[in-house]
Order: sequence, then structure tokens, then C-alpha cells
Amino acid sequence: MHPLEKMFRPRSIAVVGASGDPEKLGGRTLLHLKELGYQGRIYPINVSATEVQGLPAWRSVADLPETPDSALILLPAALVAKAIDDCAAKGVHHVQVLSSGFAEEGGEGVALQARLAEQARALGIRLTGPNCLGSISPPDGFFGTFSSLLATAKPPPGSVGVATQSGAYGSHIYAVAGFRGIGISRAIATGNEVDIDVAEAIDYLVDDPGTRVICASLEGCSNGDGLRRALLKAAAARKPVIIMKVGSTEVGAAAAATHTGSLAGEDRVIDTVFHECGALRVSSIEEMLDVAYLCSIAPLPPMESAGVLSVSGGIGVLMADACVEAGLAVPPMSAEVLAEIHAVQPMAAGCNPIDTTAQLAGRLHVIETISQAMMRGADLGAAMFYLAHLGRDMQRFPKIEGAFLALRRNQPDRTVVAVMTHVDEVRLRLEAEGIPVFEDPTRAVRAVAGAARLRRLQQDAEAVPAIAPAAPLGLTIANEAAAKALIARAGVPVLPEEACATAEAAVAAADRLGYPVVMKILSDDIAHKTEVGGVMLNIADGDGVAAAFAALMQRARAARPDARLDGVLVAPMMHGGVETIIGTLRDPVFGPMVMFGLGGVAVELFRDVAFASAPLTPKRAEALIGASRGAALLKGWRGGPPLDQAALVETLCALSRFAAAHAGEVASVEVNPFLVREKGAFALDALVVFSAAGGGH
Amino acid sequence: MHPLEKMFRPRSIAVVGASGDPEKLGGRTLLHLKELGYQGRIYPINVSATEVQGLPAWRSVADLPETPDSALILLPAALVAKAIDDCAAKGVHHVQVLSSGFAEEGGEGVALQARLAEQARALGIRLTGPNCLGSISPPDGFFGTFSSLLATAKPPPGSVGVATQSGAYGSHIYAVAGFRGIGISRAIATGNEVDIDVAEAIDYLVDDPGTRVICASLEGCSNGDGLRRALLKAAAARKPVIIMKVGSTEVGAAAAATHTGSLAGEDRVIDTVFHECGALRVSSIEEMLDVAYLCSIAPLPPMESAGVLSVSGGIGVLMADACVEAGLAVPPMSAEVLAEIHAVQPMAAGCNPIDTTAQLAGRLHVIETISQAMMRGADLGAAMFYLAHLGRDMQRFPKIEGAFLALRRNQPDRTVVAVMTHVDEVRLRLEAEGIPVFEDPTRAVRAVAGAARLRRLQQDAEAVPAIAPAAPLGLTIANEAAAKALIARAGVPVLPEEACATAEAAVAAADRLGYPVVMKILSDDIAHKTEVGGVMLNIADGDGVAAAFAALMQRARAARPDARLDGVLVAPMMHGGVETIIGTLRDPVFGPMVMFGLGGVAVELFRDVAFASAPLTPKRAEALIGASRGAALLKGWRGGPPLDQAALVETLCALSRFAAAHAGEVASVEVNPFLVREKGAFALDALVVFSAAGGGH
Repeated sequence: MHPLEKMFRPRSIAVVGASGDPEKLGGRTLLHLKELGYQGRIYPINVSATEVQGLPAWRSVADLPETPDSALILLPAALVAKAIDDCAAKGVHHVQVLSSGFAEEGGEGVALQARLAEQARALGIRLTGPNCLGSISPPDGFFGTFSSLLATAKPPPGSVGVATQSGAYGSHIYAVAGFRGIGISRAIATGNEVDIDVAEAIDYLVDDPGTRVICASLEGCSNGDGLRRALLKAAAARKPVIIMKVGSTEVGAAAAATHTGSLAGEDRVIDTVFHECGALRVSSIEEMLDVAYLCSIAPLPPMESAGVLSVSGGIGVLMADACVEAGLAVPPMSAEVLAEIHAVQPMAAGCNPIDTTAQLAGRLHVIETISQAMMRGADLGAAMFYLAHLGRDMQRFPKIEGAFLALRRNQPDRTVVAVMTHVDEVRLRLEAEGIPVFEDPTRAVRAVAGAARLRRLQQDAEAVPAIAPAAPLGLTIANEAAAKALIARAGVPVLPEEACATAEAAVAAADRLGYPVVMKILSDDIAHKTEVGGVMLNIADGDGVAAAFAALMQRARAARPDARLDGVLVAPMMHGGVETIIGTLRDPVFGPMVMFGLGGVAVELFRDVAFASAPLTPKRAEALIGASRGAALLKGWRGGPPLDQAALVETLCALSRFAAAHAGEVASVEVNPFLVREKGAFALDALVVFSAAGGGH
Repeated sequence: MHPLEKMFRPRSIAVVGASGDPEKLGGRTLLHLKELGYQGRIYPINVSATEVQGLPAWRSVADLPETPDSALILLPAALVAKAIDDCAAKGVHHVQVLSSGFAEEGGEGVALQARLAEQARALGIRLTGPNCLGSISPPDGFFGTFSSLLATAKPPPGSVGVATQSGAYGSHIYAVAGFRGIGISRAIATGNEVDIDVAEAIDYLVDDPGTRVICASLEGCSNGDGLRRALLKAAAARKPVIIMKVGSTEVGAAAAATHTGSLAGEDRVIDTVFHECGALRVSSIEEMLDVAYLCSIAPLPPMESAGVLSVSGGIGVLMADACVEAGLAVPPMSAEVLAEIHAVQPMAAGCNPIDTTAQLAGRLHVIETISQAMMRGADLGAAMFYLAHLGRDMQRFPKIEGAFLALRRNQPDRTVVAVMTHVDEVRLRLEAEGIPVFEDPTRAVRAVAGAARLRRLQQDAEAVPAIAPAAPLGLTIANEAAAKALIARAGVPVLPEEACATAEAAVAAADRLGYPVVMKILSDDIAHKTEVGGVMLNIADGDGVAAAFAALMQRARAARPDARLDGVLVAPMMHGGVETIIGTLRDPVFGPMVMFGLGGVAVELFRDVAFASAPLTPKRAEALIGASRGAALLKGWRGGPPLDQAALVETLCALSRFAAAHAGEVASVEVNPFLVREKGAFALDALVVFSAAGGGH
């Protein structure tokens, strides 16, 4: 049995700190258990009463006539430890601590929480909280929480599971879900997470047969591996996970750190990990519920494309725009299919979106033919129908209902969505047949796009390959030359470059390297070589090299009489190519990551950098490159030849293996620029930073 | 009286094509006029009946006992012309043609529509439509439309005016507005727009005292000047205009062109014009109504910053993230104010967002102190309060209601927003006091951000200065040299550059230009000079120039024995600086526009280009530069010196005057790159394209 099962479906439960006053948290929680449909046995624990809210009460868990499946603790923080001991002594191994007054208060609360964590571990107790809102299982009538929502609304049973860190956040999600008719299977808030975290709650919801879709929300995350495993398990089970992680901006991250003390990390790393593990990240609760609603009712679109049929040309265009912006293709219908459509609706305009015009109103019977044709007319993951106010008209709605049901039956793996103003009866009838109904056209499109993307992410999800740690490098610092040597050994192609103190040495070096060459003045005192005329390009032969040596030394002396000159660097001349940036970093939560982007100002000005977990496979390296807009330059810019993407892929894989195998030592690598050419690719500069401590992540 | 007044508030109205069958459009429209509260006189016109739906009917408008204020025409397209003649003969000068069968059907319909337009013009009739959905004025009970919505819902009266081209689009907007309690003052759909267009409808709504906020939607636009004037008038009146223009993507634009035959133009030009004229562009109906709702109830935030107070840390962070992403600053509270807050709520965490923790539940009285302090703690345009489920709890809600009302009264020019699950009674009570209530935290933030932005746009709105047309250039084509000469005369600094056929001429040119110089091989046959070693930089003196001339000629001959060589170009050597792109284009609807962006791949890869209407003032030129992300490079990149933005501003203004004064001839100018340096800025290349026809826009 999953450790969380007893927290969601206990046959019996102790409420430690139960109160007769429903204004108190221990009173309210007991009331919810008593009144909202829970069928198990409830044991109020109260030191001074023999009866609470009409139920017999006990002084301690120790006194109970049986060992309850789990316990909810609502005592003041200082009394929690004793209650935990009592639970352990009685054999209760599943406890939710709803009490606050722990780390979230700082000071003594931090120490109190550390002791609680240690106590639970030592006693073998699985613990949710502290400072959590408890759990609910609407299909079982179990509401083990003091959420103020329950005073006025009870989330309906359904197939959406909710796992959040914050209780108010979770109750907002299931409250709003309930208002719009989205039923809940299980919901849990994990609070300060001394033991059970959102990742483990997701893991439980994947196993739970009553949960079809999982909504999750994180404020921080300390167990990156656990989260990866839970998300990958969900993806493998094809259970959609729609996830939020707040603190995506600097202001938000600072607030989240204050709030939870959690590590924020680089937000784009979190994006990356979610997507690699097959979860869809969203940025609002509304978007989360729109996608969850669709996924809980309909099949996920098997491809990221949609057909739009609209009785309003304007709203058809609006939906087409929204599709493109959300990443859904809007392929035109084939000429044959358009002919079929025009045969039954001559006024229909466009090839996708198809505008039936409002004239459809008098000829609703043609919708079946048009919609079936549409599905044959292009490769569509979803079909969306905008029908104005038909969903409010119980006289006319039945005339189109059959067409939708037929489409649904004939295309069981495609998503069919109705967009219209509507009454509940219409919505419920369509939902029962697997057809989601939206009022707002843009939200419908975004939900379809999110679900289609989610399906692709699920399919592409794969675990990061394991890699054995390499022998320690034993380094704590490396200058440019040492860094280049290090990454060269790791498999990163580095441009050959020779330091030469004399003109003769420079000529010999150029002869070895091959012409034409570049020559650069070499001096620790001259940072900006170009500004002193210290770079000479395209030198064609030995005489040129000798002359250039003299010229470079003379210019440098003229410009900087005080500089110590070490001679020149001689390197092969590289024409063309694109400057990229490649690198690695070690995320405090998710470990070694690889980075790729366009070099130069693009990195900082446009943040055109993509991340992936290390180590990479060639396939994932290609996806990483494709995630940067700079990828367009590699494919041949403005009719130019394609560049050597294979060399780039090979280098990214090699660098990612290096970062993963030396994760204990190497904090980050930055190769900027990494020049990708028509043939080959080369590191022109490199920086390796080692962890001060040298410890692993 | 505004020409549209008689279409919205006729004292008497003729319904031409009135029918006894409410399934027919002429029957349904008459039913709506009869049943939904219209107080004026209704004259059904029907060729074959003396009574329609219980009202006396007339054979023709000519037979009416009075001249009605306006007429609705619902006849088949072929019969419309005769009805228009009848109206004119009777003295009816305000007509809405709801009939379809015109340009939207193509073929004969196009000609029919052209004749209708000409007929109305000749007769002095103001006309809405054809193919339109009519108009409604809920405060007057006037619903002159066949919208199917009215069978089940009547939009409530209120202060939001709606002007759309598409009828279904408009009825969707006022339907959804009504469902969420947003009242409508006037709504009109302009259909095929042979006469009255959305711009004129906006103009009317600005004058209408019952309209506080205007929602508009366009599919196309042919009268750019009219739209600009209407939007500027609204901005001057401080009446918010929230506007959609569909067809923002390629797919959408193609569909819109099919649908309306309207010109699409460059979508970013439309963005630019809307914002220059003080209107807020949105991309979904939901967003439109969220902003309209806020603006119809509350003052617009006087600055783009917000304070967030939340009973849930997680949702506080979510809202802070959403603020930053939507462009609202989230400034930290001052230490003094934080101390005041901690004095009443010691557990409160953070400095903005402020997390009161759920412990606030037991101490609701402190909200007044905290919220008042917050407003003093930082410069806030708005304060947002997340209160979980308090809006559903009629026992507890009154405990905080007073705090909100006090805040509202003390800060009459700031926006105060409540975010919580709620019942209608709570919402209505807060709305009555000028406090909008949202359920979704992200939507609340985006609405506040939209309203704050709208207010700034209103304040900054200004008409494009008029400029007298210049004497014709008389050109139809210009090579690079001619183009450079042309823009140089217009005031764009062009780098001096001399073509030299001999070494002696090159030395003389360099002596004139000043050292160091750049030398480039000059040949129509060599496009890529660098690849043949055809560029030499940083040449310091006359001997160097002579040597370089020989070297360049020799290299070029070696690399391209077949090329005709014209000598070399000599130009001053430019170190540093940033390559930008500046240009102009003539939009088919909105006339001459100026463009600015970062040069190189940034233009195409990141679309980092901003537009403004020409001619520019220096202030607007600065805003144009600031709208490009490349602006960061001009301010001094990575500690480098700031570049000569003044020169850039002057050039943009000069080029914009050139484009505006020659709008009849010059189709576009592209100066790429335009090099901006620490001192000065220079066009390094230029392309001018002339209109084939040489006509105006």
C-alpha cells in the first residue's frame, strides 16, 4: 500500500486537539469529518473532555480502543512532540501535523521543526506538515482539513488530483475547480515538508486509480531527484501533470525565499526539468484548471494542430491567431474536402478557420457533414467549434448535439471542443460524451494547445542517463589555457593556438598551423587588443607573419609604452561561422545542466539560452539546440550553407558528460564564443569554475 | 446631435421586412423591440400584411404617419435599394441594413454593396451595415438586433460601450459581460462598413455620457486617420478604449483577408498606432472584459506599481510574479511602515508581497491598519488583497468590509482590488464602493496592469504632427550612392567615403579624411569583400595606404582573376559603436512609419524592431529607441561608455520628416547598419524604395 493511502482513505482517524468550538481549527476539522460524509471511525483526542461535538473523546491516542489508520494533529506547536510519541507507541505510523508555529515563524520554530523531523524519522512515522492544511478525498467524503472553504462549499468528487505545498493555494484550486464543475479525486497540502513532499504526493496520485489528471504547485523544491522520478512515473503512466512553480521572477523568487526558506535556483532550469520529465508548466490557476478540465474529459490531442469552425468570421480569426500564438498549427483543408464542405454550405469561407457564417443558424443539419469532412481535410489533433449562443438554446442545441457525438465516436483519439455561451445542462450533456465546453474562445485554444503540448512532452519524457563519477581533477582554479586543455581532453574541440616570443617562432608556428593565420598581441597588460591595433587577420605567408610580428610589437609599444609584451599568439584564420555560447552549471536542486545559445549580445540582451539536464544524448542535444532561436543561424542563414551541427551536438554531449562526471568538483563551464563553422566547430575561449568545497550536489 | 444618436435612441423606428414569424430575422428583431422594454413607436413595414405581431403594419415607409428617427432594414439584399429610396423620400436619414448578401458573399454581392454605398452617399443617408447585427442600448430598453442571445439573456444596463465590426463577436462580448454582471451602455456592430465604421462608433461612445469605458474590435481598417482621431478623442476625454484587432498572425491575417477583404498591414504598426493614440490592445475577450470591468468601477492606477497583501504566501508570490510579468513594479515597503505592520501582525512576512499568513483569520481587525500602512509604504498605483474564501463567508466578510471602504475613501485615486472566492452579494457590495472583485489572482493582476498601462498611454497620447508635403524628388530608383546622398540631404549623417582608382588618389583621400582609415576593394563583381581579403582596417599613414592599395588589388586579382576592379574605397576607421537599423515604411492604412532596432541578426532572429508614426518629435524618438531591447546597448554595455543617443534621436527625427514629407513618393527607407558611436552616428549603407505609382497613401 502506498504510504499516503492511509492519509487519504483512513478506515479510522484520531483528531488530536479536537475541540467543541468550531471556530477553533481542531473544532472545525472535526466538524468537517463528522458532517461531510466520512464513513470511517473518528476518535477525538482532548485532554479535558469525555465528549466532543457529541462524539466520545479520549485523553490520549494511547487510550484508544484500536490503532487508528492515521492521526491529524492540531495542538499548539510545543505539544506536538508528545502527541507524536503517543501515536508511535500506539502503532500509528501516518500522521498529519496541521499545527503551525514551526520553521515558517523563524527563531525557535526552526529548531522545533528540526526536532520534529528527527523524531518522526527515528520513530518510523510518515508525516505530512507541519503547518499544512491536511488532505481531502471527495469520492470518500473524507475532508481532513480546517479549510474555511468547507463552511460554504464542498468540492465535488471527480478525477482531478491536487498536490500543493501551500494550503491556501490548494484550497483555492479545488474551490474554483468545484465552482466550474471539475471534480476532485484527492487533494493534499504538504506545508513545511519535513517528510512527505509534493513529489511523493504526485507519486501517490499516479498510483491512485481514481485520479486521471494531476495538478501540482511548488514554492520551493529540495529533492530534485524525487521530483524527477515522480514526474517521469506520471509521464510513463500517461497521467497528465500540470504544474506551477511560483517565484519565476526576481521579486517573486525573493518573496518565495522569505516565505518558505526554499532554494529558488534558476527558473529556466525548473522549466527544463518539468518539460524533460513530461509535465506541463503553467503560470496561472485558471490555465491549470482549463487544461486539467480538458484532460479529465477528453483524449489529449495526438498532434499540435487544430481545425477551427466558426459561425463568426471574426471569432474564427481570433481563434486562429490564438492557435498560432499558443503553438498549434492551423493547417489548411485539402481542396477535395473544401469542395465537400461547399457542397453542403456554399457560403462557407476560408480553409481553416472555416467560417460557416451566421447563415448556419437555419441549416444546422450540415454541421455533421462539415465537421466529419474537416477531420479528413488535414492532420488535426483537435477540432474546435465556435457556435455563439447555441449552448443556451434548448430548442436548437439538440439539432447539433448528434453531429458532435458522431464526430467524437468516429474520432475517438482526437479532441473535440465546443466553444459557446451555454447553460449547465448543455455542458453536462457534452461533457458526458467526452466533449469539453468553453465559453471563452482564447481559453479553449490555450487549453487545447496545453494538452497537445503535454502529450508531446509525455511521449518525449526520458530519464537523464546515469553516469559514473570520474576520477577527481584535483583542481580549484584554472586559467584560460588550463581550462581549454581541460575541456579539450573532455572532447571539446579547441582551436590550436601558439604563443610565440619571436618572429621566427611565429613563422614556424604558422607553418605548422597552415595559412592564412591570425596574429594577436600577447600581453597581460593589454585587455582590448583591437583598440591598440593588436589583431591582424588573414596573413597569407611566412613573410607576412614576420612583418606582422614586427608591426604588432611596434603598435603595442606605441600605444602602451608601459605594457609587458610576451610576443604574439598565432592561430589559424577562421572565416565565417556563427558564435555560440555553450556551458554547464550545477543547479543546487537539479544537479548538472548544459546550456546552449547564440553568442555575443544575444545571450544577455535576448536571453536566448536553452538548458538541458546533463548528460545529454545526441537526440536531446539536438532538441537543446532547437530550443534556441539562434538555431536558425545554424541551418543556413539567408541562403548561406548549413553549419556543422553534428560537431556542435558532439561537443555538447562531451561537455555534458564532463559536467556530470565531475559534478562534485565543477561548478560551471562557459565556452564563449564557441564558433560553429561550415566544417567543424571550435572553442575560442573557455572558463571553468570549481566548487570551493569540492563537494557533490 | 451625433449622427449615431438616432441609431441608438430613436424615438420612433421602422422595421422594414418585419415578419410575424419570430424564426425569421425580421420577426425576431421586431419581437426584441416589442418585448424588451423599448419605449418608442415601432412601425413594422410589410408589403402584404396590415398587422404584424399585433402591431399595425404599413406597406412602405412612404405610408407612415410620421417620419421615424431611423429604420432597420431586414429585406433580401436585392430589395434593399428600393427601401433606402423610400426612407430618403420620407426624410429618414439614419438606416441600419441588417440584411446579408453583399460583399461578404463575393460575386454580384460586391457590386450590390458598391451601389448601396453610392446610393446612401447620394441621398445623404447615414448607414450602418450592410450585413450587420444592429445596435442595442440596454439603459433605454432598445434592442434593435436579431442576435440569438436575446432569446435567453438580456444584457444588463451599465457603462461599458461596445463597438465591433463582427456582430457575433460583439454579441459574444456583451453576452459574457452580462453573465458576470458588467452592464452595457450601447453596443453596435458595423458589419461591412460602407459608411459608419468602428472608428465613428468609438467617436459616438466618447460623446455618450452614459458610456464610461469603450470595448472595440476590428477585423480590418481602411480609414486610418478616422481611427486615430476617434482614439485620440477618447484619450483626451480620459475614456478608456480597450481594443482588439484580429489577424495578428500570418494564418489569422490570411483568414481575416478572406473574411472581410480588409487590408491587414503590418500587425506591429497597428500595435503602435493603438498605443500612440492611447488605446490598450488586448488579445482575448476575457482580458478585454477584465480591464473594462476594472475601469468601469474603479479609478485607473495612477502609476504602474502595486502592493500585494495575501493570506497565502504562495499566492502572494504568484501575484508578485504576475505583476512583474505584466509590467507592474512591486516596490518594497519602507522599514518604518514594515515596523507599523509588524506591530499589529507580528507574523507578517515579506515587504511586498506581504504575507499575513492564515493566522490573519482570527484577527481580521488588523487589516485596516496594515492596508493603510501599505499605501504609505511605497508609491503604489494599486493595492491588491488576496483573502482566500472570505468573500463567501457572510459572518466574517463584514469584519473586513470597513477596512476596504476606509482605504477606498482615503485613497480615492488609487485602485483597490479584492481577490477571493466570493458570493454575488459580497461582490455587489464592494463594487458599489468602487472596489472590483476577482476570483483568479492572475487575472486580477493582469487587469490592474492593463488599466495602469492604459492610463499611461492616455496621458502620453498625442497626435502625429502635421508636415507639409515636400517638392517631389522625381525619382523612381536610386543606387547606394544616390540613396546615401538623398538621406544625407535629409539630415542623416553618412560616413564620408571616397572611391579611388589609384594609390595616389587613395593617399590624398586618406589625408583629407584623417587617419586611421579603412580601405575596401571596389568591384561590382565582388560582393563579399572579406572573403577575398578585400578589407584592411586601421591604416595609420600615407605609406600604409599606398601599400594597402597594392595589397588589396593584388589579393582581389589573385582571388577573382575575372573581376573588374574599380579601385578602392577609403573611409575613416570607426572603432566600437553599435550597429542599429533605422528605416521607414509607408503603411497602406496608417501612412508613413519609422522603424528602429538593433542591427545584424537581431532584426530577423529576435524581431527586435519598434515602430512609430512619422514624423517624430525628439520625445517620441526617445520612446521609440526605448521600445527596442537593443536600447540597453546604447546606454553603455557592460560598463562601457554610453553611446551618442542624441545623434540617433536627431537622425530618426530627420528621417521621419523625410518619409512624411515625401509620403507620396517614398515607399521605404532602410539604413542598415546605422552605426551609433560614443560620439556621432553614421549610415554605413542605405536603400530607398520609391512607389511605382508615385501616388499618396
